[in-house]
Amino acid sequence: MATYIITGCSHGLGLALTAELAKTPANIVFATSRGNPTPALNEVMTTSQGRVKHVKLDITSPPSLEEAESKIAAILDGKGVDVLINNAAVINWMTDGIHAMDDLESAFSTNVNGAHLVTKTFLPLLKKGGQKKVINMSTTVGSISMASRYSMMLVPSYKITKAALNMLTVLYAQTYAEEGFTFLAVSPGWLRTELGGSSADLDVETGAKAVIEAIDKHGKESSGLFVNIRVAGWEHNEGLNQYDGGNPPW
Amino acid sequence: MATYIITGCSHGLGLALTAELAKTPANIVFATSRGNPTPALNEVMTTSQGRVKHVKLDITSPPSLEEAESKIAAILDGKGVDVLINNAAVINWMTDGIHAMDDLESAFSTNVNGAHLVTKTFLPLLKKGGQKKVINMSTTVGSISMASRYSMMLVPSYKITKAALNMLTVLYAQTYAEEGFTFLAVSPGWLRTELGGSSADLDVETGAKAVIEAIDKHGKESSGLFVNIRVAGWEHNEGLNQYDGGNPPW
Repeated sequence: MATYIITGCSHGLGLALTAELAKTPANIVFATSRGNPTPALNEVMTTSQGRVKHVKLDITSPPSLEEAESKIAAILDGKGVDVLINNAAVINWMTDGIHAMDDLESAFSTNVNGAHLVTKTFLPLLKKGGQKKVINMSTTVGSISMASRYSMMLVPSYKITKAALNMLTVLYAQTYAEEGFTFLAVSPGWLRTELGGSSADLDVETGAKAVIEAIDKHGKESSGLFVNIRVAGWEHNEGLNQYDGGNPPW
Repeated sequence: MATYIITGCSHGLGLALTAELAKTPANIVFATSRGNPTPALNEVMTTSQGRVKHVKLDITSPPSLEEAESKIAAILDGKGVDVLINNAAVINWMTDGIHAMDDLESAFSTNVNGAHLVTKTFLPLLKKGGQKKVINMSTTVGSISMASRYSMMLVPSYKITKAALNMLTVLYAQTYAEEGFTFLAVSPGWLRTELGGSSADLDVETGAKAVIEAIDKHGKESSGLFVNIRVAGWEHNEGLNQYDGGNPPW
């Protein structure tokens, strides 16, 4: 059993991670989102015997984060948090070309500074936890080395901010290496979510299970790494190695 | 001869690039900065026979950029700009650790969105130019692959934003490959400027000369690359290959 905080749990991967983690008896999940719980999240909560708790939280707002931290700390009553999953992110298509990109600062505020603010807010609770893991949901779409592969995917602010998130992950890993922390940038591949669309490779449940396996598998010796999820039968799909559990280039 | 626009020309590398480029007869340099010209820039202008022109410009402000573009276009009277050098940047030391980092959004606004806004503003003039080069002043300190080498350099927002700038460079290169553009991320190494400090490797004039050589050497076949400057005798200094003219990893 372990205690998790996840951001962006209204739908998609955040919701699927919550549902999957709730299946393990005694896991506690603080499923956070900016608004009230969606019907789908409410359903997960209803069947979780109180082990999934929704906490409202705006990852771009320090006062909102402080308030959420106080609530979670009060519920945990002295206990810590094992794993933080920075999952909330925005993606915007920019079909008119990169010169028309007008969302760079707002995407950065959510995808990078948001992850930073969430991480720093929950560091005290993570320090009290047994696992001390921070998982930044990244993507090979944010790999500068692999950019030519994704040239037709017109999401420039997403690519730029995920590259920045990867550096953030490495810098946190460096800073907290001595304290037993594990910071990972995890690429979940291409999942059938609102973000990924219906022609994506894998259903979101398969992706969520594989993300959780990656979290369980990697300890502090992996801190600062960029890791693919591993999905049996998909390791070398289309020669992309996207589901091989390996380390994509930055 | 060629026509250049450079940002951040008050001091440091931007000033040195301006001074160096002004030595070539018939070069025209639009040396831009947020405020009035510094005494050092005034001196360069005085000895340039009018070929160095100062233009006030705030890279984070679209109206200011529009105004500067109108001024420069009027002076050029139908002619284009050959090379844009996105040099302006901020660096902040964060000695209390990454959790104390509170400048991520403001650093991103200057170091990444600023370069984007400047580039998109001057694209029409660059399209009319013969060289069509956009040089983003980057740094190996922003290389995620090389992060362990720089772990003691406590400038997290600088590292994160330069990694993001590298991705921006690659995405622009992809978008404008068909139009004959060259986008480069250039690492000038460690120079004795206000930013680099007095114990840096090279004086800023040596760095500026080598940056200009890199700009001249690389054409559109190099677009989207990350390049080191080349300095004779320093190619393999301390085994770092920082001045070998090669391509550092992202």
